[in-house]
Amino acid sequence: MTTTRRGRTVRAPHAGAKKTGLRIIPLGGLGEIGKNITVIEYGQDIIVIDCGLKFPEEEMLGIDFVIPDVQYLIDNKERIRGLFLTHGHEDHIGAIPLVLPRIDVPIYGSPLSMALVENKMLDARSMYKPTYNSVQAGQVVQAGCFSVGFIRVAHSIPDSFAIYVRTPVGIILHSGDFKLDMTPISGDETDLAALAELGREGVTLLLSDSTNSERPGFTPSESVVGRTFEEIFRHHKDRRIVIAAFASNLYRAAQVFATAARFNRKVVLVGRSMISYAELAKKLGYIDIPDDLVITSADADRLSPNRTVVLTTGSQGEPFSGLVLMSKGEHKQIRLGDKDLVVISATPIPGNEKLVSNTVNRLFACGCEVIYDRGSAIHASGHASREEQKIIFSLVKPKYFAPVHGECRHLVRHAQLAREMGVPAKNIFVMQNGDVLEFDNGRVSVGAKVNSGAILVDGVMLGEFEGSLLRERKELSESGIIAISLALNDEFRLLAEPQIDSRGSIYGLDREHMRPDVELAVERALESVRSGAVESASLQSEIRRRIRDALGRNFRAYPGIIPLISFIGAARGDEHFPDQAKKRGRPRGSRGAKNTRNLGKTKADQGRGSAD
Amino acid sequence: MTTTRRGRTVRAPHAGAKKTGLRIIPLGGLGEIGKNITVIEYGQDIIVIDCGLKFPEEEMLGIDFVIPDVQYLIDNKERIRGLFLTHGHEDHIGAIPLVLPRIDVPIYGSPLSMALVENKMLDARSMYKPTYNSVQAGQVVQAGCFSVGFIRVAHSIPDSFAIYVRTPVGIILHSGDFKLDMTPISGDETDLAALAELGREGVTLLLSDSTNSERPGFTPSESVVGRTFEEIFRHHKDRRIVIAAFASNLYRAAQVFATAARFNRKVVLVGRSMISYAELAKKLGYIDIPDDLVITSADADRLSPNRTVVLTTGSQGEPFSGLVLMSKGEHKQIRLGDKDLVVISATPIPGNEKLVSNTVNRLFACGCEVIYDRGSAIHASGHASREEQKIIFSLVKPKYFAPVHGECRHLVRHAQLAREMGVPAKNIFVMQNGDVLEFDNGRVSVGAKVNSGAILVDGVMLGEFEGSLLRERKELSESGIIAISLALNDEFRLLAEPQIDSRGSIYGLDREHMRPDVELAVERALESVRSGAVESASLQSEIRRRIRDALGRNFRAYPGIIPLISFIGAARGDEHFPDQAKKRGRPRGSRGAKNTRNLGKTKADQGRGSAD
Repeated sequence: MTTTRRGRTVRAPHAGAKKTGLRIIPLGGLGEIGKNITVIEYGQDIIVIDCGLKFPEEEMLGIDFVIPDVQYLIDNKERIRGLFLTHGHEDHIGAIPLVLPRIDVPIYGSPLSMALVENKMLDARSMYKPTYNSVQAGQVVQAGCFSVGFIRVAHSIPDSFAIYVRTPVGIILHSGDFKLDMTPISGDETDLAALAELGREGVTLLLSDSTNSERPGFTPSESVVGRTFEEIFRHHKDRRIVIAAFASNLYRAAQVFATAARFNRKVVLVGRSMISYAELAKKLGYIDIPDDLVITSADADRLSPNRTVVLTTGSQGEPFSGLVLMSKGEHKQIRLGDKDLVVISATPIPGNEKLVSNTVNRLFACGCEVIYDRGSAIHASGHASREEQKIIFSLVKPKYFAPVHGECRHLVRHAQLAREMGVPAKNIFVMQNGDVLEFDNGRVSVGAKVNSGAILVDGVMLGEFEGSLLRERKELSESGIIAISLALNDEFRLLAEPQIDSRGSIYGLDREHMRPDVELAVERALESVRSGAVESASLQSEIRRRIRDALGRNFRAYPGIIPLISFIGAARGDEHFPDQAKKRGRPRGSRGAKNTRNLGKTKADQGRGSAD
Repeated sequence: MTTTRRGRTVRAPHAGAKKTGLRIIPLGGLGEIGKNITVIEYGQDIIVIDCGLKFPEEEMLGIDFVIPDVQYLIDNKERIRGLFLTHGHEDHIGAIPLVLPRIDVPIYGSPLSMALVENKMLDARSMYKPTYNSVQAGQVVQAGCFSVGFIRVAHSIPDSFAIYVRTPVGIILHSGDFKLDMTPISGDETDLAALAELGREGVTLLLSDSTNSERPGFTPSESVVGRTFEEIFRHHKDRRIVIAAFASNLYRAAQVFATAARFNRKVVLVGRSMISYAELAKKLGYIDIPDDLVITSADADRLSPNRTVVLTTGSQGEPFSGLVLMSKGEHKQIRLGDKDLVVISATPIPGNEKLVSNTVNRLFACGCEVIYDRGSAIHASGHASREEQKIIFSLVKPKYFAPVHGECRHLVRHAQLAREMGVPAKNIFVMQNGDVLEFDNGRVSVGAKVNSGAILVDGVMLGEFEGSLLRERKELSESGIIAISLALNDEFRLLAEPQIDSRGSIYGLDREHMRPDVELAVERALESVRSGAVESASLQSEIRRRIRDALGRNFRAYPGIIPLISFIGAARGDEHFPDQAKKRGRPRGSRGAKNTRNLGKTKADQGRGSAD
């Protein structure tokens, strides 16, 4: 094998073996936490690993969640042989209800992943019926020219896989999300032997989870949390114990159930997702829950509080979650007070720090004792820290490496670690979403990008938002808006008093006081048009300008301004607004109007440049 | 001294000494980080300690900052003898430009605090001329019946004080913000001897900084950071070094200057506040800066990058700060690349985590190496950790204790620590803003509240916002708004095509497509009124309802809806809107309209219940 040093292009092991190259394309999950999705293609075959969502950034006002732009897959749907899932977390399966119907391919994953996708399709009221294929660790699935195999890994949800793909160019290993928990709760440890076996055989490319690549050392075992629970239960025998955790972390739930049983307490489940995950876990046999262990909160009322444990959602301070409602005194069944101990068995996901902190403050204000510190071993991450990541390199010995699943900082730190572990710098690719890593004719390079990006989902509506909508929402949120309507005659004279309304802007006394200023600004704008100083086509912007000036000067308020102008009662030539006349047909629903002009047209019509 | 056990009421040391009680009233800074202000009053005398601002919460859309509601002080301004400042941070002096002109009292503080207030008054373009009184540690000021003394404490800005107040009821000690740095940069260590002296004399009440009461151990000395700088400079001799820090932390700047000089690098200052603090510090003699050490970025261009250090604002990821502009490639002079090392010499203030994280990601994307970890001793907090707080209790031996400066969690943890240190639970008061801690006739209790709260500052406009404005902004930010204007005749028939505009809602194709739905909804609403099925007074809400239904059904969009209705051209009785007729006089600026009705009245007129 020879190596050329032009840029990042080097000779690959199977140099010249095939004309048709192997391409690896992360469509999401790079430079971000969430919306993980990776495309692998060779010749006429494509497979996809994961299809997740991302929770919106703070500045994405009104957005519920974000999914990857999969136009590339839609354009190539007939070549896709399957969607393979590493595990059932939202950031790996959450976009499926919106994406799968558009690419229509069979999906493969663990029984739990399949069940969770099924629930998601129901929740989304999707008419589409996926082709589910439950697979077990060790199984291999043929998908076009690819053989896809599943390796058990430990993570914070049961039945998680790393996925390896035998391709004509060599083996690609995708770690999924993982940690190396050597004392897991239910035997779900990472199958190091299988990874070593692949390493012996030779792994061409490793794609590996970078989430915790900033953390030195080892991530604690999940079973550490169980020991902490044990200690907490022992030290707080006189209190009710409330534990908040991720609903999907069935290991955590299992440890709560076990500890509760040991201390002769009953468990009350709070939160829709907590209840549905527990039901699913029981149904599929992931957790053994004795029949009389879980009781309703009504039953709990008949027990002394220190005979119960509440397992609830809300560990991230989510607005309508169980714990948050309790902290606000708004939960229907459960009132917290100074006899309660609350354990937040999670760390805040980046961006949720303030929500969690506010929840803790409210809990203290209720009089509770709260255990929430990072230091107190009440949570264990599901992602490998640096020493674990090193072990993966040592076992797998990949020729090439591309860090996945993480913000830029995580990818860079993971790449630095790969170099420490002996992967040559030229064989490491810190990519961005949409980059194409190409193994072509013996050369490995990051080539031209494919279409990628974020689709913001607002309610159940789906669209490729550009910045404009969010920019408008941001402006609205900062300064509010004033709408003003004018009914004018032919000569730009008012036929009625201007109608004015506002939202999120002028308030209190000022709201009543602004009317004279607005009316004066309007009158002056009309005057300018009548006198010919301003062209009639510029009336809207003249009104905006004058109102903005007046309110800024007198109220220090800078709201957006929407002028809506109707012309009434007289035939008017189209000389003022010739382009409008062509666009619009007969006015609908207007009676008595000879001619109306849509100056109050939508901003989309106007072009965005005219925004106030 | 006897103790009654009714609630939190206990006998105070000077039982029966005076009829007129001593009252301590925190108007801000409790249950929050920021807007610190404490009122102490006895008989006809009031003094105030600090007058700070707070940065807005995420949900305070469009708000620049928040100041305490000081109506209580305004109502009692003739009794106020002075405003005493512990130190010059924004959360202790930031509200002064808006508050001081309304209470008009002399202010006392360190020379640095006075200079910073003076700058703030200039920035605010205030006409008010404060009476400045520079004081030194050790000095005592008489203010009515109070003697107010100043004790040097270490903090992250020079010239910080604890303040003690001799009152007719005993000594009150307010810690200010402090740490117990035994190896500070410039001899500014906390004067433990003075605190011990007060403790020997007997402190009735301690009010103490709770910010770090969740942190075990000791806060590292500021000089630790200097040693880290030394190491970083030694290990990165080939790189330009960029250090981001708080501009007000002059010790940090001093250490950057010293290390730069030692390693023969020049310093470039970036960011308005960084430059102005450095100038002030030099002028007042806080830092010794050799004349040729600081150079402009133009001069720096003539030097090899590894001969310079950039000291910049932006350690909190503030949107237009030096570091953020650099990370976006938008800084005019400084371009970052793979030869640069960036050191973020600060930890994110709660709520800023995401801003800082995004900045770090962008820096990595520029190719920089970045040092930002908590573990790497590149920052030292300015607040005492638990072991230091214990030392204060041990020296001061307060009879009563009330934690200040912190969220509920911090206050509760500090109160728990006070109990560990032997303060009886009944002598500890975890208060809220506006609570009155009363030492009256030998009894100590938290009594009736005074007016307190938050005044949100939006631009330079100032008002007591209720929730309504922010609620409106939140709704706007999540769903956007549609404004629609109708010109109607007497018979509720349209005289022109409805004018429609929207912001932050319907977008793209849908925006063009929604018009037929809106027009149909309007026509049906008018029909209902014409047929008598709906009262004319309800036309607006009928229009809102029908548009909302149509857009929800067809577009899954739920914007706010502002209907503006003008009646034109015919005399109309006031039977439909009798109350409006009385309110409004002759229509201004309307020509040809016999009668117009302001259905499009502002929401303030309508009452908030009718919001859509």
